[in-house]
Amino acid sequence: MMVAESYETLYGPILADIEREMRAVRQEQVEVAPMLWDIIDYQFGWDLPPNQGDQFKNITGKKIRPLLMALVAQAITGDYHHVLPAGAALELLHNFTLIHDDVMDKSLERRHRPAVWTRWGADQAVNAGDALYALANLANARLFKHGIPAEKVVDVWRAMSQVCLWTAEGQILDMGFETRETVTTGEYITMITHKSARLIEAAAYIGAVLSTNDQAVIDGYRHFALNVGIAFQVHDDYLGVWGDETQTGKSATSDIREKKKAYPLLAALEHASDDERTTLRHLYAQKTLSDDDIQHVLAIFDRFGAAAQTDTIAQQYFKTAMASLDKTGIQNDTQALIRRYAMFLIRRAY
Amino acid sequence: MMVAESYETLYGPILADIEREMRAVRQEQVEVAPMLWDIIDYQFGWDLPPNQGDQFKNITGKKIRPLLMALVAQAITGDYHHVLPAGAALELLHNFTLIHDDVMDKSLERRHRPAVWTRWGADQAVNAGDALYALANLANARLFKHGIPAEKVVDVWRAMSQVCLWTAEGQILDMGFETRETVTTGEYITMITHKSARLIEAAAYIGAVLSTNDQAVIDGYRHFALNVGIAFQVHDDYLGVWGDETQTGKSATSDIREKKKAYPLLAALEHASDDERTTLRHLYAQKTLSDDDIQHVLAIFDRFGAAAQTDTIAQQYFKTAMASLDKTGIQNDTQALIRRYAMFLIRRAY
Repeated sequence: MMVAESYETLYGPILADIEREMRAVRQEQVEVAPMLWDIIDYQFGWDLPPNQGDQFKNITGKKIRPLLMALVAQAITGDYHHVLPAGAALELLHNFTLIHDDVMDKSLERRHRPAVWTRWGADQAVNAGDALYALANLANARLFKHGIPAEKVVDVWRAMSQVCLWTAEGQILDMGFETRETVTTGEYITMITHKSARLIEAAAYIGAVLSTNDQAVIDGYRHFALNVGIAFQVHDDYLGVWGDETQTGKSATSDIREKKKAYPLLAALEHASDDERTTLRHLYAQKTLSDDDIQHVLAIFDRFGAAAQTDTIAQQYFKTAMASLDKTGIQNDTQALIRRYAMFLIRRAY
Repeated sequence: MMVAESYETLYGPILADIEREMRAVRQEQVEVAPMLWDIIDYQFGWDLPPNQGDQFKNITGKKIRPLLMALVAQAITGDYHHVLPAGAALELLHNFTLIHDDVMDKSLERRHRPAVWTRWGADQAVNAGDALYALANLANARLFKHGIPAEKVVDVWRAMSQVCLWTAEGQILDMGFETRETVTTGEYITMITHKSARLIEAAAYIGAVLSTNDQAVIDGYRHFALNVGIAFQVHDDYLGVWGDETQTGKSATSDIREKKKAYPLLAALEHASDDERTTLRHLYAQKTLSDDDIQHVLAIFDRFGAAAQTDTIAQQYFKTAMASLDKTGIQNDTQALIRRYAMFLIRRAY
């Protein structure tokens, strides 16, 4: 897949440094309960022999958050090594939320392998997630090795704690939506903002705050990342209904089949006539949707321009993101890499 | 109950200050998902009308960890207000582990009310626990209001992260013991040390480190607390088999009925003859134990001196704790209150 190849070619060395730092954080700990460390090694693919062919993409994850942090730091200072501990921390934190999310969502697989709870049970998965969050916090203490002053370390810690609280609140909103009759597109944006975009925002914020005291630059990268994060989610919702299977790797209309309360459905519900809204609700109230049902849903989506609305919203956030990036006033090769990074996330260039 | 009255009389004003700080941490946050805050308010009894008769003891918890932190700070400096944010953080952290533990242990009740997972379901309880851990971390940022330098704030954060990792490892060991044929008393001490004593150690450590740079004083309080924490657990195991029901509030021999792999059983297994060991294993392998079975177990415990062994171990740790307290070289009224505190924990004076 060409896109993935370029991602690795462009960002490979940074990703390798992040990986190395994450392993160092783990190695630093004295093992009390060996099973915990088995679970952590498994989650990150560290139980596998090194240099497995597809290990990079499939097992260890794309590390989009620490990568953004490193890129922002490099765009500002020309180097990124001073943010690696915080990058490792954020990736550990992200994985803690994944382990718990898989328990809550009953997702059997993660990165082409059984999810932690599938293999070790829900209780141990809850525990391992808790431990991983603690380990993420400990990773930040390694910032001192790079001469980062304590005030900045505290700032990083605070930002990560705040984003973790928001992520949990986003998850709670998401679970609440499942049992609600009506969810507005506005409420949905609030949910995805907190459930996932805030973490991307935190990545850029931390990369910037560890590299400059210029508030305008920090704010520029922060707003860029927040808006890219929202655009990413909305565009993902678009691809979940109208995506190209060969590009997304999941079947088109899969979000309809799984009855996801994603942006296209909410936009259609908001603009549909009372009759069509009732029809949509009835279709989604069924236990499973037949192929005919899915075509029916698609037809209603079509009639009320759900595709265009979803695409427009994603584009708006993406444009705001790019404008925020410009406001940093920084122009160099790394800034160009950040632009490409945003396009990788959205999986196409607007 | 005289003991509880004295606890409130002696420590009431400090406990009220901790409670106030915890509420302030919570008030500081902008609510994104209201349900989260309902759960948190419920966990701490903040959903109840103020000044409910038994609220203090039964619903809001005894707050033994932040209390110890405050007492250590006061013994060293004459005041404790500068450690209140860290005390609130540690109590929030402790409650996050309780919410998750109740999910894992399927404990239906907590502080005389349905546990969070019983009322909101396991998924929301996992989520709320995660959020509470994040909130605990955020509480520490309030140390700046008391002029604590950033280096010390980082130290507190690191100590809390480390103890959280250890607590999770202790919980993993504990869950692993349930399915194991043989657990030594040594392994058991390692488990309770990490699952609970480390958190009490962290309370004293943080209280001391925020109040002095004298390493001997810090180490003295730290070792005191660690050893008291272990003594507390072992003595609790003693009371679970031979306790006075009117004092402990739970029926004597309850730990046998619940087939707990606690210290008395492990000590008996270690010292019993092969025959008696097999008998014990058979008794504990049953789904439930009859009253006759319990008497049989008690008789075997008796034959191999399990009560004396359990008591001796608890006493040893308690004596080490008291000796460590003396090594701080501090002698004042608050130090006397710390001694009484230790006796409250152990529920009797050695």
